[in-house]
Amino acid sequence: MLTDAMLRDSIGVDGVGHDHRVTRGRLEAFSDGVIAIIITIMVLELVPPHGSDVQDLLPLAPIFVAYVLSFANLAIYWNNHHHLLQAAKTVSGRVLWSNMLLLFWLSLVPFATAWMGENEFAAFPVALYGLILIMAAVSYGFLVRALIAAPGQTSTLAEALGDDFKGRISPLLYGLAIPISFIAPLVAFGIYWFVAAIWIVPDRRIEQRIAT
Amino acid sequence: MLTDAMLRDSIGVDGVGHDHRVTRGRLEAFSDGVIAIIITIMVLELVPPHGSDVQDLLPLAPIFVAYVLSFANLAIYWNNHHHLLQAAKTVSGRVLWSNMLLLFWLSLVPFATAWMGENEFAAFPVALYGLILIMAAVSYGFLVRALIAAPGQTSTLAEALGDDFKGRISPLLYGLAIPISFIAPLVAFGIYWFVAAIWIVPDRRIEQRIAT
Amino acid sequence: MLTDAMLRDSIGVDGVGHDHRVTRGRLEAFSDGVIAIIITIMVLELVPPHGSDVQDLLPLAPIFVAYVLSFANLAIYWNNHHHLLQAAKTVSGRVLWSNMLLLFWLSLVPFATAWMGENEFAAFPVALYGLILIMAAVSYGFLVRALIAAPGQTSTLAEALGDDFKGRISPLLYGLAIPISFIAPLVAFGIYWFVAAIWIVPDRRIEQRIAT
Amino acid sequence: MLTDAMLRDSIGVDGVGHDHRVTRGRLEAFSDGVIAIIITIMVLELVPPHGSDVQDLLPLAPIFVAYVLSFANLAIYWNNHHHLLQAAKTVSGRVLWSNMLLLFWLSLVPFATAWMGENEFAAFPVALYGLILIMAAVSYGFLVRALIAAPGQTSTLAEALGDDFKGRISPLLYGLAIPISFIAPLVAFGIYWFVAAIWIVPDRRIEQRIAT
Repeated sequence: MLTDAMLRDSIGVDGVGHDHRVTRGRLEAFSDGVIAIIITIMVLELVPPHGSDVQDLLPLAPIFVAYVLSFANLAIYWNNHHHLLQAAKTVSGRVLWSNMLLLFWLSLVPFATAWMGENEFAAFPVALYGLILIMAAVSYGFLVRALIAAPGQTSTLAEALGDDFKGRISPLLYGLAIPISFIAPLVAFGIYWFVAAIWIVPDRRIEQRIAT
Repeated sequence: MLTDAMLRDSIGVDGVGHDHRVTRGRLEAFSDGVIAIIITIMVLELVPPHGSDVQDLLPLAPIFVAYVLSFANLAIYWNNHHHLLQAAKTVSGRVLWSNMLLLFWLSLVPFATAWMGENEFAAFPVALYGLILIMAAVSYGFLVRALIAAPGQTSTLAEALGDDFKGRISPLLYGLAIPISFIAPLVAFGIYWFVAAIWIVPDRRIEQRIAT
Repeated sequence: MLTDAMLRDSIGVDGVGHDHRVTRGRLEAFSDGVIAIIITIMVLELVPPHGSDVQDLLPLAPIFVAYVLSFANLAIYWNNHHHLLQAAKTVSGRVLWSNMLLLFWLSLVPFATAWMGENEFAAFPVALYGLILIMAAVSYGFLVRALIAAPGQTSTLAEALGDDFKGRISPLLYGLAIPISFIAPLVAFGIYWFVAAIWIVPDRRIEQRIAT
Repeated sequence: MLTDAMLRDSIGVDGVGHDHRVTRGRLEAFSDGVIAIIITIMVLELVPPHGSDVQDLLPLAPIFVAYVLSFANLAIYWNNHHHLLQAAKTVSGRVLWSNMLLLFWLSLVPFATAWMGENEFAAFPVALYGLILIMAAVSYGFLVRALIAAPGQTSTLAEALGDDFKGRISPLLYGLAIPISFIAPLVAFGIYWFVAAIWIVPDRRIEQRIAT
């Protein structure tokens, strides 16, 4: 266990020759590991049915649809996390803990996915799913701010983040979906898909703009 | 969360000094993690029997045989994925999403393996296994094309891929196996083994040719 | 399998040009992998309830509270482990085995967490949780001493570790909590939270001191 | 998917500028991931008992003892694997497949561990455990020979491996333990512990010899 002095050193406060890329690299590796495990253990909820007919798969349909959405959401988080850290020069203790908070909320996604899928999109499970997505989005915001505030960070990161329209609109849409869950849960579920779509689609748009 | 501008930067569109090997490295690390978890959690389907006699293991035989095939298939994907990315110079946003699509279909392999093994190679489970292998092969094809089309990619990759006979024949054989599943599921299962074999065997052949 | 001579070489005893950063890097990667899996599989204990009402979640409350504590404890270990290895120059065979011992005790955290949560903080499960935390802390101490004693280690590591007040007080507090478990288990559980808090809070304090 | 030509290139046959450390690095990363997952999912067999008394833990004792042995065995494999690959200069297609075969047999360790522990060291489960350890040891031998035979490998690796007394004695002792399993399974179980001990103990002996 470490003294405060050592911690201060290794989080890049006084810059006495520590290699920040090592810290960033291991933070990325740990986050990759956790996200890879979360995205994969969700499939354990897809328990194979006892029968071997195609209609035996039908009861799994809502669980499968929920799984696809959560896979997409975690893939989006991995993508954004990867790009965010790539633009960062230094990492601080606050960054490490903000990242842990983000991973904590993401670790609850498999639970919320299973509860939502097994109850065929009932009101409370759909609302809980939205709540966990809001908490993850807020934690991601903490991580962004911690990275910008990290000692020695260049202005490149803040500039690169810019306006961040999608980052601001996503938790608002999730917040809208939660009350809707209690009236029309499938509409709320549709909003979650819509938010996932606005994060995935633009990548292709950029590619096409470049190709022309 | 990131703006389009940042994303454009970090995916290597305008080449303002981003280290593409970092992106490629983290893409490889994440894919390694997901494939390592998929290949390993499949063994959880091999639930130890209550009895302690050798014949208590017999009901596990079909599950074990299905596990061996899926282990081989995932090992082949890891091998090919590794060689493919090693030949690539740059990575784009489209590459990241094609890769996620491939990992998604691979993540369904444990489910299909368990359903097929537990139902002792009944028609529908064997057909579903083939369908998931086709989807994975098609996604792999998307990944290859996305890598070739990535801005800044050298022609080395396209040349190295060349004719790709095995890549074209595999989904065709899987497509043949699916209707056969409903007539003679064990024949279809044999076709899956045959496709795995044509991917594994040549490595040895090359080695031997070199050794002589 | 390797001869003693090879092992002696590769653990950096005679320093004939082996790259110690490779060994340290792979030790970090393996530890990251194990800790990432431990922190994530704990969530499998949060089995979704059959009902879809908010009160159906209530029986999960103690399991969830135990999960949050264990997530925090494993995050603290990852953080400390990361900083400790970053300050080390060389790694020895004894370091590899001390690290394995630490990972062994951490691997029992999900079991103790589940037993404690499912029995709503009964005496024995709470005591066992404390015992495993003591064993992990003692193993961490072995790892620190093994790193300091590693051939070729610079004095930087020993200096950086310094007084290590928190490292000495933590197992004492856990040792106090174990007898308390049999009188007032929730007080013991509170002590575990207090120890976690003293490891997390100072990071923020350092950051704020720097910001002003 | 790749042509033979590409495969030949990337496995370092003709040496046209491919970075072999990349291949070795990713092989290590994938193996680390798989071994980390195998070593960790074994703990899922330790299902928390329903009661909260200390005697409720008693039925778990054999499962726990089997877990400790398997944790030690997998830690030994990781250690040896790490030292082996560190001494290698190049990696071939045959190395990749020998490595996959080793990971396959190691992936069956959790199954054999659980069957042995749950049946309190009955004859067949103890024999199967030994069989899987033999298959893993044989696969490890294949990996060693594949590495020595890899095109471009320096003689350092073969020299470093030298006599390899422990590598030869281990499968012999496992082979002895299998028939003993049917007469006195606890003696066979003791032999497994003895083999693990001869792999762990010498590290400390070397360290002490150096310290004096």
